[in-house]
Amino acid sequence: MSPSVKVPAPRLNIDNINQHVVAAQYAVRGELAVKSELYRAKLLAGDKDLPFDEVISANIGNPQQLDQKPITFIRQVASLLENPELLKHEDVLLNSLGYKTDVLERAKWLLSQCQSVGAYSASAGVPAIKQSIAKFLERRDGFPADPAHIYLSGGASSGVNTLLHIICASPNSGVLVPIPQYPLYTASLAVLNAACVPYYLDEARSWGTDVSAITAAYEKSKAEGIDTRAIVIINPGNPTGASLPEEDIRAVIEFARKENLVIIADEVYQTNVFIGEFLSFKAVLRRMQSETPGAYDHVELASLHSISKGMVGECGHRGGYFELAGFDPLVEAEIYKFVSITLCAPVVGQCIVELMVNPPRPGEPSYELYNQEYTSIFEGLKARATALHAAFSSMEGVECGEPQGSMYIFPTITLPPAAIAAAAAEGRSADEFYCMRLLEQTGICVVPGSGFGQKEGTLHFRTTFLAPGTEWVSRITAFHAKFMDKYRSA
Amino acid sequence: MSPSVKVPAPRLNIDNINQHVVAAQYAVRGELAVKSELYRAKLLAGDKDLPFDEVISANIGNPQQLDQKPITFIRQVASLLENPELLKHEDVLLNSLGYKTDVLERAKWLLSQCQSVGAYSASAGVPAIKQSIAKFLERRDGFPADPAHIYLSGGASSGVNTLLHIICASPNSGVLVPIPQYPLYTASLAVLNAACVPYYLDEARSWGTDVSAITAAYEKSKAEGIDTRAIVIINPGNPTGASLPEEDIRAVIEFARKENLVIIADEVYQTNVFIGEFLSFKAVLRRMQSETPGAYDHVELASLHSISKGMVGECGHRGGYFELAGFDPLVEAEIYKFVSITLCAPVVGQCIVELMVNPPRPGEPSYELYNQEYTSIFEGLKARATALHAAFSSMEGVECGEPQGSMYIFPTITLPPAAIAAAAAEGRSADEFYCMRLLEQTGICVVPGSGFGQKEGTLHFRTTFLAPGTEWVSRITAFHAKFMDKYRSA
Repeated sequence: MSPSVKVPAPRLNIDNINQHVVAAQYAVRGELAVKSELYRAKLLAGDKDLPFDEVISANIGNPQQLDQKPITFIRQVASLLENPELLKHEDVLLNSLGYKTDVLERAKWLLSQCQSVGAYSASAGVPAIKQSIAKFLERRDGFPADPAHIYLSGGASSGVNTLLHIICASPNSGVLVPIPQYPLYTASLAVLNAACVPYYLDEARSWGTDVSAITAAYEKSKAEGIDTRAIVIINPGNPTGASLPEEDIRAVIEFARKENLVIIADEVYQTNVFIGEFLSFKAVLRRMQSETPGAYDHVELASLHSISKGMVGECGHRGGYFELAGFDPLVEAEIYKFVSITLCAPVVGQCIVELMVNPPRPGEPSYELYNQEYTSIFEGLKARATALHAAFSSMEGVECGEPQGSMYIFPTITLPPAAIAAAAAEGRSADEFYCMRLLEQTGICVVPGSGFGQKEGTLHFRTTFLAPGTEWVSRITAFHAKFMDKYRSA
Repeated sequence: MSPSVKVPAPRLNIDNINQHVVAAQYAVRGELAVKSELYRAKLLAGDKDLPFDEVISANIGNPQQLDQKPITFIRQVASLLENPELLKHEDVLLNSLGYKTDVLERAKWLLSQCQSVGAYSASAGVPAIKQSIAKFLERRDGFPADPAHIYLSGGASSGVNTLLHIICASPNSGVLVPIPQYPLYTASLAVLNAACVPYYLDEARSWGTDVSAITAAYEKSKAEGIDTRAIVIINPGNPTGASLPEEDIRAVIEFARKENLVIIADEVYQTNVFIGEFLSFKAVLRRMQSETPGAYDHVELASLHSISKGMVGECGHRGGYFELAGFDPLVEAEIYKFVSITLCAPVVGQCIVELMVNPPRPGEPSYELYNQEYTSIFEGLKARATALHAAFSSMEGVECGEPQGSMYIFPTITLPPAAIAAAAAEGRSADEFYCMRLLEQTGICVVPGSGFGQKEGTLHFRTTFLAPGTEWVSRITAFHAKFMDKYRSA
């Protein structure tokens, strides 16, 4: 040992670590988000020099960080799951604390099924919870569902990670991804060193899914020698909010059948729908299968859902599931092995999945409050989306379709050449430059369109409509007017 | 559209999916575990034909699935985190439900820091929880710790996944892994298509870490052209239970310094220690750094901890963290980005990490019960380990060192040639054959040594000592005697 010798540099540096991780981009929690957290910390520490007194995190669909209250039924059950000793005091729960009998019954049943929320469950999830999900899918879709093909996951993100790990076999494996998209897909494909095959959504048609655009992207990838094997559909859309009509879903399934592509249907916003109604890929696939027996039997569909969105909004609990249809049993066995390496999804999150898919029904003691809370969250989101849309529509150079669903609005912005030049001088894209100034001057954090992908020459930003009140919306309007004045006259 | 054409096979099959996933092995939840779950379901359904009336899952360190009760303080706080409305009824909590004032205070403080356990936290975890962890590390190690280098994770598994994703840059990247080991490491390296560089622990020296074995493995990998860049140490050991003395830790750090290797210290069993005492790699590294200033400054250490093990045993909550020391800031930025793609670790799990590292102290209202529960779990584990060790020691052909810690015993078994031949005839390794017969005849599920790795020509199995009572131990003894009789005389 000669500790006085020259100390080497650390073994790991930015050039020798996994370059696929280095290549991944994830703007939702990037530079803007980090800066907004610094502002928040400054304000908490009593800073008075910032031109705002509150940071609004409109960059991420995180309902309970903002105004959305958890649903009482869910949290009452969860409190009993965490402390089953409380069930020894039924009269206190019922008479002093306002718990209803169905809350107690549900907690007892879930505990009987998972033993303890502190125990690992089976790798793919608590069997009884998978059964509840299957029953929910049957009610929702009108077709049977089999719990054996349901896998609980730590939020939908973890499910996407599993599916892409299985699908992507080499740098040549391609996955069709909508643009704009939630950047989990591009980031995961980058980490896996697989090919992202982008297809553009049609902004002119309310961000609809256009099979001719998908076909063009697919053919281009084929010509480049890419083995494109799956297509991602985010329905309702993130960041766009668009909900697909049945004919569009049919067209995608038909395309997937023809080209033999796995469909990954990210349906986490299925209850956040303001215009039209949500229709699942599974329901439409089963309809097509029953209409033309045999023709669609081998279409592989993975559909994902989550407790993080909708009126439930329990992001922090990391719960979700995916259902598989048409997968080869040997491939499913590999999926099972892959999820078992991470042991199991968080068990409280699994239980909240159960509460989401099997909520109190009319006539049950907790129903009235549940329904009131659920409806009020839904109406609140819709009202905020409408107010935000009205504000954007009044802004110079901003175009924004009517809000359709999800938790986001994704307006187009047209900026003066001087703003674009100023952005370039700062080494930024123009949309990022705009969002950075917005954050610095108003404390409002949104995500530039380039974080999701956008057509060459267009600019957008994504904002959630989760923050309460309208004051923050007027901060945006005032900022925008000043920004435009500055660069228009420059 | 011509749906009457020939229906193709599914796009994904066992030969065209990600072969690195196919190559991964994870015996802890493999065939034996699946079979044990089938037996459990049969028994639940009233089956009377099995030769046992209870399945004992001794294959996985899952304390609360067996006899270990959750710690009251932790679950009381968690119940309030789940339902903060309960905090409006302080007198009911205190006077009717037995909650103490420190439970209420801790819950209020955690809620003030994370806003809601249903909200995503910052990507690396709730800042105040990182501060609590840093204070714990300072108390434990006697050296400062910086919350900026602490990352909350969904159990330690998720932390290992993050670290290996960063470290493994190509199929040529190697990681030294102890054999026997917890198969998370080999499975993750297989999925990442990186090189596992195995080094053997020294069974004759209570499964100690032998630097000459590490050196030999490292030199061999170098000769094969492998770029070995990290070494995994599981301390206390899994499956072996061995706790490293300071001189062994120093020797590993010295080796890592000399060869410029990243140290991954998996310290999830740090409170499960019966012989000797736990000493962290971080404490020893800081000692060496202060003894020889400058010489060890660039040793990169990642140390992991978890709420799943120890007296806490909250596996289902998926909580843990890792701390980095000596990492390049640009590399840390990539680690931050990687964890942010999965959004955040489960927030209740993060809060339970806080409760684990910052438990009630003497004089505080919850201390007495906490201490009583903690001590009783510890003593119970030790007593069971001792009983199991005594039983194994009495069995023909079984050798088993004194239980040192963790939750496992890993005896060597010597089987008659006829048993080895019977195993081969069934296409199984002899240890797997033995464990399969044990499960079929007794309902006790253990893991064959081949699931963790063992020296050529040796056989082992791993059993937890979590199951209550001694009746199941005598089932093993009786099975073993019969098994030996059958094959000895064959």
